[in-house]
Amino acid sequence: MKLPYKKEIEDELRLFFKQIKKDVKFPEVLGALDKLEDYTMRGGKRIRAILIVVGYLACGGKNIKEIVKVSTSAELLQSFLLIHDDIIDEDDLRRGGSTVHASFRQKYNQRISESLAMITGDLSICYTLEPVLNSSFSDSLKLEAIREIMNTTKTTCFGQILDEYGELKEVDEKFVESIQINKTANYTIAKPLVLGAKLAGASNEVIEGLSEFGLSLGRAFQIRDDILGVFGDEKKLGKPVGSDLVEGKKTLLIIRANSKFINSMIGKDLNEKEIEKIREIIISSGSLYYSKKLIEELIEKAKKALDKVNIKSEQKKFLMEIADYIGKREN
Amino acid sequence: MKLPYKKEIEDELRLFFKQIKKDVKFPEVLGALDKLEDYTMRGGKRIRAILIVVGYLACGGKNIKEIVKVSTSAELLQSFLLIHDDIIDEDDLRRGGSTVHASFRQKYNQRISESLAMITGDLSICYTLEPVLNSSFSDSLKLEAIREIMNTTKTTCFGQILDEYGELKEVDEKFVESIQINKTANYTIAKPLVLGAKLAGASNEVIEGLSEFGLSLGRAFQIRDDILGVFGDEKKLGKPVGSDLVEGKKTLLIIRANSKFINSMIGKDLNEKEIEKIREIIISSGSLYYSKKLIEELIEKAKKALDKVNIKSEQKKFLMEIADYIGKREN
Repeated sequence: MKLPYKKEIEDELRLFFKQIKKDVKFPEVLGALDKLEDYTMRGGKRIRAILIVVGYLACGGKNIKEIVKVSTSAELLQSFLLIHDDIIDEDDLRRGGSTVHASFRQKYNQRISESLAMITGDLSICYTLEPVLNSSFSDSLKLEAIREIMNTTKTTCFGQILDEYGELKEVDEKFVESIQINKTANYTIAKPLVLGAKLAGASNEVIEGLSEFGLSLGRAFQIRDDILGVFGDEKKLGKPVGSDLVEGKKTLLIIRANSKFINSMIGKDLNEKEIEKIREIIISSGSLYYSKKLIEELIEKAKKALDKVNIKSEQKKFLMEIADYIGKREN
Repeated sequence: MKLPYKKEIEDELRLFFKQIKKDVKFPEVLGALDKLEDYTMRGGKRIRAILIVVGYLACGGKNIKEIVKVSTSAELLQSFLLIHDDIIDEDDLRRGGSTVHASFRQKYNQRISESLAMITGDLSICYTLEPVLNSSFSDSLKLEAIREIMNTTKTTCFGQILDEYGELKEVDEKFVESIQINKTANYTIAKPLVLGAKLAGASNEVIEGLSEFGLSLGRAFQIRDDILGVFGDEKKLGKPVGSDLVEGKKTLLIIRANSKFINSMIGKDLNEKEIEKIREIIISSGSLYYSKKLIEELIEKAKKALDKVNIKSEQKKFLMEIADYIGKREN
């Protein structure tokens, strides 16, 4: 589907990097910022930034230029989270290119590369609030936005911790749901919409409705992500298929398959034949079917919640479309 | 010397951790927050937080309760930076106890422990702005404080990157000075004072004077740190002596010694005899004398700058004392 404001957001991001690099005189720091820029610009669907803009317009916001500016915060935050996540997961490929630590490794050893990547991620959170601070929203709205962004980052870190522990012990479906909500649903769908809505001065009722929509849809987004991570197309994804299995991630697919073979294999280096065997079990156990069904249910739930929310019809229509898109997306 | 407001700051920090933990229901996250609390509470002289309070009072600020609250941000920021720094330097000991990754390692392997510690550090920056957001300063002052804090974090990350590169290549005294200013002087002395002053509505002239004082004194602080790192008392320091050498840190002491033997040894695992040999060269080359002399000069320069600044006499006296203390400190 065509995503609105993607070009405007990317233009604004490009401008932002140009500006921040102008103030830096150390070539070593510029090198890190170049990598951060490349990683940020290369990436993704900009779903989070777009949802900030859409949430704002849906609630009657008029200042497109300023909300596009604020929305770039989501992409800087995303880079902070993903760069650290890549280090944790030892992933060398993301968004169709090298991860930051893998890129540093062209020159330095693994240890130094991870250190430099960790600091590059840290730099990204330092810049995350600048678009908000530099916007023309009122002081009290800026403060509200900052509180939202830092709270969202916090719950995402909570989700990261749960995710990490999920790899270390037996967990149940409830635990996996907590990971989905904290690590993904909040910061991918619910909170961007809420941030946009708040900047447009939305009522609590509208914010609650958007939040409900976002949490259900965000869980669907994560489960779809889990499916793509095992059954997806590497070229479309821009990262290796099966890496979730190698990392030992406890996804709904794995928990529901409830397979001794899978449990004994995940977290190990797997060859294509073993990954294929795991795929077969996920299908034959009914886990894939269950997960797809749950995605459908969550999308229906999300759409029902959205239907009740009193927002502009154009954006409501777009959010309904994006809900359907998320259930079918290939990357 | 007796440091004012240390107890109040620590009481406020303790209360803060109690409050944030009340809202968390996941035992895994609480485990990380416990480690963050232990690391934060155990630590240090609270110089940065104290200087925020002192900068504020020096410029006529009256609301001690609120400035003490805001000052705790500096300790949360410090934990974020140090936890990541400990991972980078592979240090197991800090502030007389285990570093966060070393503490996780009692249960998990090195890789997982470092991942959990990195996220625990990330959590700390998520909480850093809360004391500001929750304070009763005006919205525009809060925003100014947030900008200061994030800018300071950014320049400290710049310093971290320079520090890391300093271990990888030949660097000169100018480069080491850039590390001192960015990695230490800014966020340890200059910026805390400036933050406090800004919250009290200080004039640009006063802010510039405090900044000049802080940058000179901050460099003296770092050079004293380098000396303690090689010649200090492990018990007083709370961390191993010689670790800078093992990590290959390019400090002024090392650069000025200009010794082939030292350059061939640093960055390797060193025994006590080798460290002693390095100490002897640092002394005989005149590098220790040079560094001590530079500390004296920087302190004099700082005091001269401070003398000209129009601030309250009680705080001016304290800052003069702290300048002398920093040149002689043992931990």
